[in-house]
Amino acid sequence: MADFLVVAFGGNAILPSGRRGTLEEQRNNIRHMSAELGRLLADGHRVVVTHGNGPQVGEIMLKSELAREVVPPLTLDVGGAMSQGQIGYMLQQEIGNYLTQSQIEHSVCSIVTQVIVDPNDPAFETPTKPIGRFYGRTEAERLRREQGWDMVEDAGRGYRRVVPSPQPVTIQEWPAVRSLVAAGVLVIAAGGGGIPVVRERDGSLRGVEAVIDKDLAAQKLASLVQARTLVLLTEVDAVAVNFGTPQQRSLQLVELLELKGHQQNGQFPAGSMGPKVKAAIDFLESGGDRVVITSAANLIAAVNGLSTGTQVVRSRESAVSLQRTLTGHAT
Amino acid sequence: MADFLVVAFGGNAILPSGRRGTLEEQRNNIRHMSAELGRLLADGHRVVVTHGNGPQVGEIMLKSELAREVVPPLTLDVGGAMSQGQIGYMLQQEIGNYLTQSQIEHSVCSIVTQVIVDPNDPAFETPTKPIGRFYGRTEAERLRREQGWDMVEDAGRGYRRVVPSPQPVTIQEWPAVRSLVAAGVLVIAAGGGGIPVVRERDGSLRGVEAVIDKDLAAQKLASLVQARTLVLLTEVDAVAVNFGTPQQRSLQLVELLELKGHQQNGQFPAGSMGPKVKAAIDFLESGGDRVVITSAANLIAAVNGLSTGTQVVRSRESAVSLQRTLTGHAT
Repeated sequence: MADFLVVAFGGNAILPSGRRGTLEEQRNNIRHMSAELGRLLADGHRVVVTHGNGPQVGEIMLKSELAREVVPPLTLDVGGAMSQGQIGYMLQQEIGNYLTQSQIEHSVCSIVTQVIVDPNDPAFETPTKPIGRFYGRTEAERLRREQGWDMVEDAGRGYRRVVPSPQPVTIQEWPAVRSLVAAGVLVIAAGGGGIPVVRERDGSLRGVEAVIDKDLAAQKLASLVQARTLVLLTEVDAVAVNFGTPQQRSLQLVELLELKGHQQNGQFPAGSMGPKVKAAIDFLESGGDRVVITSAANLIAAVNGLSTGTQVVRSRESAVSLQRTLTGHAT
Repeated sequence: MADFLVVAFGGNAILPSGRRGTLEEQRNNIRHMSAELGRLLADGHRVVVTHGNGPQVGEIMLKSELAREVVPPLTLDVGGAMSQGQIGYMLQQEIGNYLTQSQIEHSVCSIVTQVIVDPNDPAFETPTKPIGRFYGRTEAERLRREQGWDMVEDAGRGYRRVVPSPQPVTIQEWPAVRSLVAAGVLVIAAGGGGIPVVRERDGSLRGVEAVIDKDLAAQKLASLVQARTLVLLTEVDAVAVNFGTPQQRSLQLVELLELKGHQQNGQFPAGSMGPKVKAAIDFLESGGDRVVITSAANLIAAVNGLSTGTQVVRSRESAVSLQRTLTGHAT
């Protein structure tokens, strides 16, 4: 039986961070990812895709800054919206091209997505997410003074702007995503973790200078549209515990409680697996059936079975029923 | 009775051409337009919105060029996609804010839209649409040589890049637009006339360096989703014939055949009312009921009756039945 999936992958899968890739290089990477996502449709799954945008929004904001004497500068919410247009376009075109060549009839579209955050989120007090390029000390001081940016020193590489990374509360456009999925459309949404907005006292939404973790946004979207499986793609095949020690081992099929135990033991640092594990726990606790954490190369096998990558389920019993549902479906 | 409308307005309504507007100025203009569009929903109409992007994509491409030594430059299709994200975001947020404050429950979302053009369209032989800024003669020569751009001289103001402006053939994402409208969502689509793409021999879509007239794209979208009324907003209240002569008069309620007569008499120059009149004729000949051409200030009155702005109908008889449908609905 087919599954209903939200699949998230990082902006680095399109444009490796710290590298200046041409559009053609980005498109080649997107083409590769698009074939994997297209194969999920061939297998009959309903699919929503969320992508990162770090390198792309970094470039957009850098250009805005370089041109600031000529063109009024962008705010980060608008830059994020532009990156959703850019990446969404390339992705929907390449997924569509894969489907056409595979003679699969399926619509694909990207929607501009606002993610609501809490203005009282403690993240606004302590910005932690670095964005954009490195600056020298004098320039960093000037930006702090003139733009009000928070700047942090990165040992040996200079200073970088940091912005808050608040938790997603809800997603403004989720009903549209759900309608499109019901109509048989592959939807690309919440790109870059979504455009961060807060709700004002009068009910209005207003963009804020922040970045939302794309795995947490994907989880929120998956819960709102009632997807059954959340897939978080990363650079490794599976989540490891006791990382970098002789006791290191990969997690395969794990129960929610076991994963929470590892989390409480501090196994997953904030900068790497932390948000993915938090997203996994939140998704299962909100009614989701399964979370898959693995590499893009494993995507198809991991979705169509329970034995590839890290697979998190609510309980062993739920795994048995999931296995029964997936059996006969694996390609 | 409520109508099903596609409403198109120009990018100049957001950012007046030739002016460097801050995001805040653009947002104020968008807020103004959003209130008008939101009122259409309050009146019970189903609405799809198409916007221009000339000034915005001009800024995006200018920044790309200024930063080309640092960040690999954009192609025009990707720049167009970015402008759809930017304008779509601001528009969906402001329309949503208007609806929230008016206590109207309605979803709003923007979708990234590809518009298919014919690679054999004669427009590709003779690029006519100026984009971006003015250059001096030497710089223009260099761009022609190095980038392969077509450059034309604009008397007294220097040289400007021109790109082809092919006819829209169809719209890749129209089924998604139709599904969303059916689900009660206000959809923003085909922004900037859509991202121009051609279909390759193997069936793939590929972006091209071109600009599609947004009124023609709006007509194509309106016909594909089977909207009943196409609204083309402009800076004047009505279309005029014998413009600039003592015989100048505004067209009010006109039949398709009468409008075609004026068109054949060369009343509507290519650079101004030409594309709007062509869009009007094509829409009615493809089964549409009504085309309204008027200013944003007249939008509500024009939609809810037949006596404001220029209203084009198939025949006097169809006008009678339209009038009956609209009666009792005007607010």
